Amino acid sequence: MGKIVCAGLGPGDPDLISVRADRAIRGAAQIAYFRKKGRAGQARRIVAEMLAPGVVEHAMEYPVTTEIPFASPEYNRLLSAFYDDWTRRLAELARASDVVVLCEGDPLFYGSFMHLHARLQGVVEVEVIPGIPGMTGCWNAIGQPMTWGDDAMTVLMGTLSEPELTRHMQAAEALVVMKTGRNLPKIARALTAAGRLADAWLVERGTMPNQRVTPLAQADLEACPYFATVLVHGNGRRPIADSAADAAE
Amino acid sequence: MGKIVCAGLGPGDPDLISVRADRAIRGAAQIAYFRKKGRAGQARRIVAEMLAPGVVEHAMEYPVTTEIPFASPEYNRLLSAFYDDWTRRLAELARASDVVVLCEGDPLFYGSFMHLHARLQGVVEVEVIPGIPGMTGCWNAIGQPMTWGDDAMTVLMGTLSEPELTRHMQAAEALVVMKTGRNLPKIARALTAAGRLADAWLVERGTMPNQRVTPLAQADLEACPYFATVLVHGNGRRPIADSAADAAE
Repeated sequence: MGKIVCAGLGPGDPDLISVRADRAIRGAAQIAYFRKKGRAGQARRIVAEMLAPGVVEHAMEYPVTTEIPFASPEYNRLLSAFYDDWTRRLAELARASDVVVLCEGDPLFYGSFMHLHARLQGVVEVEVIPGIPGMTGCWNAIGQPMTWGDDAMTVLMGTLSEPELTRHMQAAEALVVMKTGRNLPKIARALTAAGRLADAWLVERGTMPNQRVTPLAQADLEACPYFATVLVHGNGRRPIADSAADAAE
Repeated sequence: MGKIVCAGLGPGDPDLISVRADRAIRGAAQIAYFRKKGRAGQARRIVAEMLAPGVVEHAMEYPVTTEIPFASPEYNRLLSAFYDDWTRRLAELARASDVVVLCEGDPLFYGSFMHLHARLQGVVEVEVIPGIPGMTGCWNAIGQPMTWGDDAMTVLMGTLSEPELTRHMQAAEALVVMKTGRNLPKIARALTAAGRLADAWLVERGTMPNQRVTPLAQADLEACPYFATVLVHGNGRRPIADSAADAAE
């Protein structure tokens, strides 16, 4: 009986995969990866030059949900059935040999794999190999320190409401906003309300060959870029009077 | 003229270093790393089995500052002189060959290297290789999804004041608190005030051989563990009515 090995792929550059995940992917007899119907899939693209000859591939194609509201019971039912189905299939496939599931970024950080991870517990052995999160690749693409000193950093999803985004953006020094796409105009309005728009960057395809880094204020907000993350750097906040704060406790 | 290559080492397990950083470290003729006086240094320990024979090592030993308040001008002056000095020395050393500077975690995320990074701009070529942040290793040590759905995640330094910690802890779903050590009792009080203590984990030496994961409520808060991070998982927050929120904008 084999196991399920979830390999974190990091931000996109195959050279940024961990040594352990690199070894697992190159040695895999079976791989599986999520993709949208009709697409090659970003995870599969990252490992294109790494696969052994004769590897068996399992594309886990998301059900088409574009016409269904994200928060509806119908959406939830479709997705649950999809993950249930692949849990069963992966457990079955693992009888022959280990199955390496490819996950962009770090698998336990906003990844689709966690829906399988929860379902696979007690069914088949699961090993997760961490990866460099996509956001880490993005701030390395800009090439400036993201956080230092006492900076607080908050990671937000662009799907949050505009008041929620604004409230979080006012509270933290460094900011990361993922799930941008069509939420980009809303994100820019929230940043403006929080007084942070001028400090914000848009990173598209961070660490990938066609990477692009643009000040958000100069970006085309209606273009809905793929694999785009918004970043605001920390300012190296230092405690004003650490000894005084200690004494006050 | 060589360059300065800052290699992110990831959370501690050498097998979690990226393929690119692994190659740079194994091929290095010169390495440099931060450490406290009289200590081997965590960065040096991670690469112990990876160094080429004859590699020249440069230990960048922090000035002793234990008796000086963290926020004092004297502390700041000592640290600045230390970074200035090593900027000069690294630029000089790079005349012979590339110098690989070892940095735990990701170099641009709360790392000491950023003080050199800023000073080295325009002096010598600098290449930064991203790494898996320490916190990512810690949530993989627990083995549960850190964030999903619409969760907001905030990263905090334990050096913040108790009211600041509490305020941030009330605002976000998932939490990471670094720089714990002697701040641990304060962090636990802030988590209690925010109603999050029961959900908090203490991860010591995440991904290292002697890793330990403890519910924070059961941990010895006065023990000042090294390389310890506090984590609270997100709860998979989903927007209640995405279409309604969109309509309200």
